[in-house]
Amino acid sequence: MEQEIFAGDGRRRVVIENVAPEINGGRHAIKRVAGERVAVQADIFADGHDALTAVIMFRHERQREWLEAAMEHVENDRWRGEFTVSETGNYFYTIEAWVDHFGSWRADLEKKQGAGQDVSVDWLVGAERVEGAAGRARGADIEKLQKWAGALRAAGKRERSGASAASAEASAPERVAGEELKLEELAGLMGRHPDRQSATRYEKELGVVVDRERARFGAWYEMFPRSFGGLKGCVEQLPRVAGMGFDVLYLPPVHPIGRSFRKGKNNATECRRDDPGSPWAIGSAEGGHKAVHPELGTLEDFGRLVEKAREFKIEIALDIAFQCAPDHPYVAEHPEWFRRRPDGSIQPAENPPKRYQDIVPFNFECDQWRELWLELKSIFEFWMDQGVRIFRVDNPHTKPFAFWEWCLGGLKAKNPGLIFLSEAFTRPKALYRLAQSGFTQSYNYFPWRNTKDELETYFAELTRTDAAEFLRANLWPNTPDILTQFLQTDGPPAFAIRLVLAATLGASYGIYGPAFELCENAAREAGGEEYLDSEKYEMKAWKLDSPHSLEPLIARVNQVRRENPALQSDRGLRFHRTDNPELIAYTKTTDDRANIVLTVVNLSPHYRHSGWLDLPLEELGLEGRRSYQMHDLLTDERYLWKGGRNYVELDPRISPAHIFRLRRYLRTERDFDYFM
Amino acid sequence: MEQEIFAGDGRRRVVIENVAPEINGGRHAIKRVAGERVAVQADIFADGHDALTAVIMFRHERQREWLEAAMEHVENDRWRGEFTVSETGNYFYTIEAWVDHFGSWRADLEKKQGAGQDVSVDWLVGAERVEGAAGRARGADIEKLQKWAGALRAAGKRERSGASAASAEASAPERVAGEELKLEELAGLMGRHPDRQSATRYEKELGVVVDRERARFGAWYEMFPRSFGGLKGCVEQLPRVAGMGFDVLYLPPVHPIGRSFRKGKNNATECRRDDPGSPWAIGSAEGGHKAVHPELGTLEDFGRLVEKAREFKIEIALDIAFQCAPDHPYVAEHPEWFRRRPDGSIQPAENPPKRYQDIVPFNFECDQWRELWLELKSIFEFWMDQGVRIFRVDNPHTKPFAFWEWCLGGLKAKNPGLIFLSEAFTRPKALYRLAQSGFTQSYNYFPWRNTKDELETYFAELTRTDAAEFLRANLWPNTPDILTQFLQTDGPPAFAIRLVLAATLGASYGIYGPAFELCENAAREAGGEEYLDSEKYEMKAWKLDSPHSLEPLIARVNQVRRENPALQSDRGLRFHRTDNPELIAYTKTTDDRANIVLTVVNLSPHYRHSGWLDLPLEELGLEGRRSYQMHDLLTDERYLWKGGRNYVELDPRISPAHIFRLRRYLRTERDFDYFM
Repeated sequence: MEQEIFAGDGRRRVVIENVAPEINGGRHAIKRVAGERVAVQADIFADGHDALTAVIMFRHERQREWLEAAMEHVENDRWRGEFTVSETGNYFYTIEAWVDHFGSWRADLEKKQGAGQDVSVDWLVGAERVEGAAGRARGADIEKLQKWAGALRAAGKRERSGASAASAEASAPERVAGEELKLEELAGLMGRHPDRQSATRYEKELGVVVDRERARFGAWYEMFPRSFGGLKGCVEQLPRVAGMGFDVLYLPPVHPIGRSFRKGKNNATECRRDDPGSPWAIGSAEGGHKAVHPELGTLEDFGRLVEKAREFKIEIALDIAFQCAPDHPYVAEHPEWFRRRPDGSIQPAENPPKRYQDIVPFNFECDQWRELWLELKSIFEFWMDQGVRIFRVDNPHTKPFAFWEWCLGGLKAKNPGLIFLSEAFTRPKALYRLAQSGFTQSYNYFPWRNTKDELETYFAELTRTDAAEFLRANLWPNTPDILTQFLQTDGPPAFAIRLVLAATLGASYGIYGPAFELCENAAREAGGEEYLDSEKYEMKAWKLDSPHSLEPLIARVNQVRRENPALQSDRGLRFHRTDNPELIAYTKTTDDRANIVLTVVNLSPHYRHSGWLDLPLEELGLEGRRSYQMHDLLTDERYLWKGGRNYVELDPRISPAHIFRLRRYLRTERDFDYFM
Repeated sequence: MEQEIFAGDGRRRVVIENVAPEINGGRHAIKRVAGERVAVQADIFADGHDALTAVIMFRHERQREWLEAAMEHVENDRWRGEFTVSETGNYFYTIEAWVDHFGSWRADLEKKQGAGQDVSVDWLVGAERVEGAAGRARGADIEKLQKWAGALRAAGKRERSGASAASAEASAPERVAGEELKLEELAGLMGRHPDRQSATRYEKELGVVVDRERARFGAWYEMFPRSFGGLKGCVEQLPRVAGMGFDVLYLPPVHPIGRSFRKGKNNATECRRDDPGSPWAIGSAEGGHKAVHPELGTLEDFGRLVEKAREFKIEIALDIAFQCAPDHPYVAEHPEWFRRRPDGSIQPAENPPKRYQDIVPFNFECDQWRELWLELKSIFEFWMDQGVRIFRVDNPHTKPFAFWEWCLGGLKAKNPGLIFLSEAFTRPKALYRLAQSGFTQSYNYFPWRNTKDELETYFAELTRTDAAEFLRANLWPNTPDILTQFLQTDGPPAFAIRLVLAATLGASYGIYGPAFELCENAAREAGGEEYLDSEKYEMKAWKLDSPHSLEPLIARVNQVRRENPALQSDRGLRFHRTDNPELIAYTKTTDDRANIVLTVVNLSPHYRHSGWLDLPLEELGLEGRRSYQMHDLLTDERYLWKGGRNYVELDPRISPAHIFRLRRYLRTERDFDYFM
């Protein structure tokens, strides 16, 4: 007979499976912000009918010892527990579960006593289990457990020696032979010294990337420095940007722009002598990804901008676009990083039939990919040395996922405060995979979700599926590449609608300005989404003092966001029924329900719409018989509502939306009505 | 700067994820029967816009070399392919995918030509790729590819030297400079010699357990030998069992029955001298799990029964119950395998407040668990030596899952024809886990699914979720432990209804007879499911010649099952809408739709019911304008139907159900109507 192989300890009877969250079989981490909770669920069960105990084990990467959080049985062998991640960096979590022989004993004892059965031997069995725990215990618990073991043994003897009638009369399981044994107290003691020798440890350690708060919540403003006189001009814009309430000022690439095949106005293949070219055609004789375009200023100017912005509580985000103009120094110094065609020319970027002659892509399939990866990572490091902690990454979906995993993971290991925004308007699965591969936030399909059904479906996908665990949406109503049809055709009310949607549906959102606040809506061609006379190819002189500017609305909305923690996270988003398809309504709620914000948006830029709105009072912690106050934070108007169904009306010419803070009714000592 | 670590080849750009089927992250295998197909899906994508190629790789455990099956893109980066498992045993499958540079080149070329762009250099790029393939090719393909490379190169030169106008005029992509290059032919050649150096292999090898046909399809008959004069009496029953059309004759344990604490009639704790005891209280001085009860016969008698049954094309299935009577030889020989209580007694089986004094369970947590596992496995081996290949396993959910994985996996590795039926009427997740842990078939909740909604919901769960991949339901309307309320209260029509449901919903089903065919429906107590005067505790004298016996119906139904391959698998099950909640309707269909069986059951044992039934004609391969024939295989009546909606009526006093074979209209040469 051949040798029998036993894999592991066969006495591990507990099964742990279907753990959630677990992304791609545990290969990728979930995301949290320091201070947030992680709720973990799993199917946990064993053969037979024994009681089980299960704990989440978790630790920060710097800790060696696991911490533990209890899990509770929910139903149908599904267990749930949660833990809090308090520091930035990587956490790991797993599950351990074991048969709780004391718990099984106690449950069986109760059932037997309930049926009036003789339990004298059961007391002795209990005593043995307690003695076992005493052997595992330390300190004062040892003596306590030994005392308990003696008490159980005595109870068994008494019951056997004739007091069995008493047990049948016992009204509570802990009452035996006239003596009260506080088994609940013993259970607490036993729970501190479980026998985990045959515990099952879940076979994977799952990861949590814990970021700082800005990863979850922030308002971004994108601006081309060249239209404002370069980096110094940006400094002058800081009061205005801060006045609108933005947290992040994001700049397109600030590097020298290539001269060969430079694009002219409106993406013309021929450029005029004074055309500045696209900032994404990076690199010229003046330098590459680690240089500042001389027309924008110097590296010192950049540093000063970062510093000055900090005074306004604004962070500078830099665009990183891994591509080169044909005259980028890399092309001559590292020809091996580019694809060469049989005629000796370098393969330009293309997505046939589109051609991008002013750009050459890196060849990530080259033999020297390791050197290429290291150099690209060093570009981030260079700008980190200039004080940048937030990067918007251009077209990450055209570089290998493995590169991002390595690059972003390596950078964040040294600096967990880094934030990377993925600019990938690509196919859904690639977009998700980038979020899993280390990007902190993601561009997404929000720009093209306009109707109530589209918005509800899409945000259910983002916030109610696994995506909520690994993808943080950053909502942009416009970008320099995207002037949506909705914005093109419906004027300022359309901009106001998209602003409120972005700022209240998304804890993170951004606009490309001043095009946005000035409601710039001329497209290069009908059916397209490119701006006419796009700032991508020319300098613009923006009329910032326009009386029609949305600046006041933007400032108000951003203030509301700062004052209402419910709007600072996407986890509490819930849509509510209205009887008018043009009225969308949703609440965001903090975990403790202390802050509840109800947003109602009229999706039509043209017409006044009204309808009835249904709120789930119980879910919001409201009593049906009490009034509550709806305080519109945009207009400062207050409405007294009662019950789940209330009337709303919105005229886009007056306001595109209500952003209500729900205030509960409180009665004070002096008997005045008071809402908080 | 510290050493940079690169995990794997960074040029592997393709991602493979969300592979299905994949049970418990690949830990457990899916199930198939030899000759069946395995459809595999996965999300497969890469950065950028390149064309990809993906294949399923699969092999039988005895093969070293992988075979390959092509995958096709379905939509949204989801790919699909399939392969056939032809032999019993274990198969493995995984996926490999790579960037198809030739495919990308060809697609780009078409787009550029379509836009009238200069593609002269592209032809040269193509030539380089073809030369690369020539370098990888063998045999005649080398020369073919070299010729092709030359042709592409020539095309490029011609186009460059002035024929560029011609390319703009080209009507088809393969037409260049006046010459036709059959790129489709080249693509076929290139596909044989792909560059898989940077291919991504999915990180897991997933398993398929391939069984013989009986694992999927079979009718079981359970019978207590002792009521028929032991094993010799069973031989005499074979013609009757075969006459009813059963494939498997399943016997409760045939071992010596314990004497201590032997149960009396109706589970009485005191037994009379001549009470035979429960066959599941295994072991006495006369032997244990490897012995035959002397009152049933000898081991030779058992062998003869196995042999004789084979002549009737019936297989003997044996019950394996891993538990002992207190006087089982194991208890004295291996006291270390049992739990001893502080008073020196052995812990009997209990599920408080229920007690099973006649049974002691094994202690799977004992230190000698390895020896215990080996001994238990040897019990299967002992009965395999007596010719048994099918085992019904009693209460597997009270033994560790790890034990079953090891035991059943080890046995099947040597004999892939073995079939194990899990008798676990336990919580859903434990029931599923047992199916994953090596059981070929599973008891399930069918006995308690009575209404249309209950049946449709439950069978959707069994056949339309992942469960279909690893769990094969064996449907039992009754067992010696289960006389359902439905059978208790509604007499013979109830039995007929449950028979037809079991035999047509389930490719595998079984009955405990003769209690079933004789419509025995007296319960021990109201609200319970135990038989009054249960055969578990006494010998029964069955009146097999009762005129009310369901034998003829059972024989007919089993014949219909044998003649209709659609009923031999559960994969093709679809429910259809009726407008009467008492009428349930479903089809089973073979993959090629050559055999379609529609079953309509009147779920009420009391009343005649009628209603309108909707069939999805297109799904069934029917044309709306043609009549089709419904041939009732129970009554041999034929109905001419047309269109999707037709009328059905069933009277439980006449027949509980229609089992229709759908016959399509065919026109013969002689212009008669003909249905097949």
